Amino acid sequence: MASFSGRHTRHLLGLEGMTPDQIEPLLDLAESYALLNRSRKVPRDVLRGRTLINLFFEDSTRTRTSFELAGKRLGADVINMSVAQSSVNKGETLLDTAATLNAMRTDLLVVRHSQSGAPALLAQKVEASVVNAGDGMHEHPTQALLDALTIRRHLGTLAGLKVAICGDVSHSRVARSNIFLLTGMGSTVRLVGPPTLVPGAMKQRGVEIFHNMEEGLQDVDVVMMLRLQRERMSSGLIPSAREYFRFFGLDQRRLQLARKNALVMHPGPMNRGVEIDSLVADSSQSVIQEQVEMGVAVRMAVLDRLTRSRPAA
Amino acid sequence: MASFSGRHTRHLLGLEGMTPDQIEPLLDLAESYALLNRSRKVPRDVLRGRTLINLFFEDSTRTRTSFELAGKRLGADVINMSVAQSSVNKGETLLDTAATLNAMRTDLLVVRHSQSGAPALLAQKVEASVVNAGDGMHEHPTQALLDALTIRRHLGTLAGLKVAICGDVSHSRVARSNIFLLTGMGSTVRLVGPPTLVPGAMKQRGVEIFHNMEEGLQDVDVVMMLRLQRERMSSGLIPSAREYFRFFGLDQRRLQLARKNALVMHPGPMNRGVEIDSLVADSSQSVIQEQVEMGVAVRMAVLDRLTRSRPAA
Amino acid sequence: MASFSGRHTRHLLGLEGMTPDQIEPLLDLAESYALLNRSRKVPRDVLRGRTLINLFFEDSTRTRTSFELAGKRLGADVINMSVAQSSVNKGETLLDTAATLNAMRTDLLVVRHSQSGAPALLAQKVEASVVNAGDGMHEHPTQALLDALTIRRHLGTLAGLKVAICGDVSHSRVARSNIFLLTGMGSTVRLVGPPTLVPGAMKQRGVEIFHNMEEGLQDVDVVMMLRLQRERMSSGLIPSAREYFRFFGLDQRRLQLARKNALVMHPGPMNRGVEIDSLVADSSQSVIQEQVEMGVAVRMAVLDRLTRSRPAA
Repeated sequence: MASFSGRHTRHLLGLEGMTPDQIEPLLDLAESYALLNRSRKVPRDVLRGRTLINLFFEDSTRTRTSFELAGKRLGADVINMSVAQSSVNKGETLLDTAATLNAMRTDLLVVRHSQSGAPALLAQKVEASVVNAGDGMHEHPTQALLDALTIRRHLGTLAGLKVAICGDVSHSRVARSNIFLLTGMGSTVRLVGPPTLVPGAMKQRGVEIFHNMEEGLQDVDVVMMLRLQRERMSSGLIPSAREYFRFFGLDQRRLQLARKNALVMHPGPMNRGVEIDSLVADSSQSVIQEQVEMGVAVRMAVLDRLTRSRPAA
Repeated sequence: MASFSGRHTRHLLGLEGMTPDQIEPLLDLAESYALLNRSRKVPRDVLRGRTLINLFFEDSTRTRTSFELAGKRLGADVINMSVAQSSVNKGETLLDTAATLNAMRTDLLVVRHSQSGAPALLAQKVEASVVNAGDGMHEHPTQALLDALTIRRHLGTLAGLKVAICGDVSHSRVARSNIFLLTGMGSTVRLVGPPTLVPGAMKQRGVEIFHNMEEGLQDVDVVMMLRLQRERMSSGLIPSAREYFRFFGLDQRRLQLARKNALVMHPGPMNRGVEIDSLVADSSQSVIQEQVEMGVAVRMAVLDRLTRSRPAA
Repeated sequence: MASFSGRHTRHLLGLEGMTPDQIEPLLDLAESYALLNRSRKVPRDVLRGRTLINLFFEDSTRTRTSFELAGKRLGADVINMSVAQSSVNKGETLLDTAATLNAMRTDLLVVRHSQSGAPALLAQKVEASVVNAGDGMHEHPTQALLDALTIRRHLGTLAGLKVAICGDVSHSRVARSNIFLLTGMGSTVRLVGPPTLVPGAMKQRGVEIFHNMEEGLQDVDVVMMLRLQRERMSSGLIPSAREYFRFFGLDQRRLQLARKNALVMHPGPMNRGVEIDSLVADSSQSVIQEQVEMGVAVRMAVLDRLTRSRPAA
C-alpha cells in the first residue's frame, strides 16, 4: 500500500496537491473500515492508549460525532472541547490552547475553526497530528474524501467523471476540497450557481463555470448540492429562499438532465425545499445517507494512518 | 428465561400492553446487574463494539447520565447529543437526524423528546434499537421499570398491591408508564391529586381516582410522589406551591395513613417542601435513592436485552 | 511507599496539614505516570470498572479535561456533568445531587464549586472518594501538587526554597494550596502584590509579604504568577490592567532579580500582557507547559491512590 506521505504525512490539513497514489490507498483503508463497521468487528486496539481531542471552535454535531465515533471505535480516549466551554473565552490565545493540549500528550487533534488556516497554524506548534475538520472558507478534507469514497463505490472510479457542484460554491470549504481531490484524480468539476455565489474567478484547470442549472447538469455523473447557509439568505447575495429554489434548487425535472442514474449528494444537513427537493433527496439516486456512513469510515482511516506513521514513544 | 418479545422485541417505546412474562425476566436481569454494579464486576464485553447514542431533545442530566453509565459499564461506545448542539437548530428534520445516526451504524438510540410519539416515529426509520427515555406526556418506560424493581425488592411481588401515585398525574409520562406496568402485573393504582391535575377521565380498569390525600393514602403499600413541574405553578392549575403542599404534599402525618412501612418513592429531582416534606424524603421508609441505583441496573438490562435479540452482522 | 493516609485517605479535599511523608510518595507515583504518559504505556486496568464523575459547578475546560484524561487513561468510565445541564437548575439541592450520584455507584467524584467547603460537605454524604478540583477561595489541591512536582523535577527538592507567589493572592485557592504544601515541605513562600490583593493578615509561619515586585522577587528560586481574574479589573481593587502590568506584571527585567535560572510558573490560562509578559512566558525559564503535563500525571496518581485505598466490594 502506498504511503500517505509527503508534506501530509503528519497532519491532514487539506487536499490541495495530493496525488492519486496518496488518495487511493486511503480510500482502500476506509473501504475496509466501512465493512468492519457493518459487522461490528473493528479491532479495538488500533488507537488504544492514544488521545484524540475534538477541538471545535465552530459547532458541528455531525462532524464532531463522526470523529468521536471513529476515534472510540478504534479504542482511543476521546475528549470533546467546544469553544463555548473553553479557556478561549477567558482570553487565552489559540496558540496557548494548542500548547496546553500538546502538553497533555495528545496524539490526534481534530480542529474546526471559523478562520481559514487556523489548523495549519496549530499544526506548527504541536506534536500531535492535526486533522482539519473544516476551517473558514479554506478546506474540509475529510468531507471530500468521504464524497470520493461514496462516488468510487458506485461508479468504480474517480477519473474521467463529470461532477456538478451546485450552490454557494464561493463560501464553501467543502467545494474547495472536492475541487482539489476530483480534478487531481482526473475528473472534471462543474461549478453551478448564481454569479454572486459562483464567481468566474474560480475557473481553473479541470473546472467549468455555469450560472444555469439546466446547462450545468447536462450529462453529469454526479450532482453534488451544497447547503445554503441561512446567513446567506439575508445577506443580499440571493433574493429569497423561495426564489433560490426556483432557479437553483435540485428537483426531479432538473435531475433528469444529468446522466441516467447520476448520483445525488449533499454534505448535510439539508434544507429541504431550499437547495434540494425532498423527492430527490429521498430517491433511489440519492447516496446522502451513504455519505454519512462513509464519513465515519474515512475518519477512521485518517486517524489510523496518521497515528501509524508516528511511533508513540 | 422468557423472551422480551412480541412487538417490543426490537425497541422499548412504552409499557402499554406488556405482560408479566415480559416484565419479570427483565427485572430479574436488572437485579443481577444491580449486584454486579455493587461489586464492580460488570462484564465489559456485553456491548463491546456497539454504539449507543443518547439523543436528548429535552434536557435531563439524571436520565442521560443513567443511560450513559449503563452503556459504558457494559463496554459500549457512548455518544451524547443534546439538541442545543445539534443540527436540529440548523433546520434539519427529526427524520433526517434519525437517518444520519442510522447511517453511522448506531446500535442503540436512546431518545428523549418533548413530543409524544417522537421515539416511535424514529423507530420506524432506523435499524437501531430505540429506547424511549421520556416522550411528551406519553411514556417513560425505564422509569416505571426501575420503580417496579425497587418495589419488588422490598415487597417481594408486584401483584395485589395498592399503589398511590400522587400529584400532577395528568401531565406525567412517569404516571402513565407506571399505570400500565402495575395494573398489568395485577396491582391496583390510585391516582391522587386535585381535579385539575387528576381528571376523572383517567379512570380505567385497575385505577381509582382520589382528590383527597387522606382518603387516597389509606392502607396503600406504596406512595409514589410525582414532581410538580415549576411551570405548573404559574399556569393557574394550582393556586401556589405553599397551598399545594398544604393539601397535596406528603408529610409524616399523611404517611401514617398508609400501611405500616409503606414505601415512599419519587422519580426525582424532588421539590422539597412542595410535593414532599424533607422528613419523609429522608426517612427509613424512603427508597428514593434506591430508585436511582435501580435505574442504572434496569437500563443495563434493557440495553443488554435489546442488543442480544439482534445479531450484529 | 508511605501511605496516602490519615484524614486524607478517602478524599482529597485540601493540602492543609499534609506532611512530607504523605506528599512525597504521591509525587513519586505521579512522576511514574508522567513517564508512562510519554511512552503511551499506561496500564488500562488501574481504574477498570470504576466510575468517575466530573461534577463542575464552575466551568473550567482545562481542569475538567485534565481529570477526564487522567480517568480515561487509567480505564475508568468517565462522565461529565456541568451545572448548566444539571438538576441543580431544577431546584435540586447540592446534597440531593450527591445522594443521586452516590446511588449510581460512583467511585470517584471530582468536584469544582464556587462555594468554599462544598466538596467537603459532599464528602460527608457519599461513599465515593471526593477530589476537590477547586472550591471558592479555599483550596485547589491538585494544582499545588502539580506545581510541586514540576518544581521538584527541576530543582530536585521542595525544601529550603524561596517561592514568590505574585498577584491576586487573597482570592486565590491556588495560592492557598501552594502555601500549605510548600511551607509544609520546608520552603519559604513570599506573597507579592498590592495591599488590596495581598493583605497583611495572610502572614503566618513560613510566609512573607511584599507589596513591591522588585523586593519580592529578589533571589527567589521560583516565581509563581497568578491569573488576574477579569472581574477583579472592574471591581476597584486595581486601577486598570495596564497599570497592573506596570507595577505587578512579570517581565524580563524583574525576572532578572530572581536567582539565575529561577523557574517561571503560571496555573493558566494566562493573560499575556496583564500579569505576565509574553517574552517571559515563552522563555527557557518558563515551565508553564510542563505544569499542564504534570497536571494529568498528578491527577492519575491521586485517582489511583484514592481508589486503591478502598476495596470495591
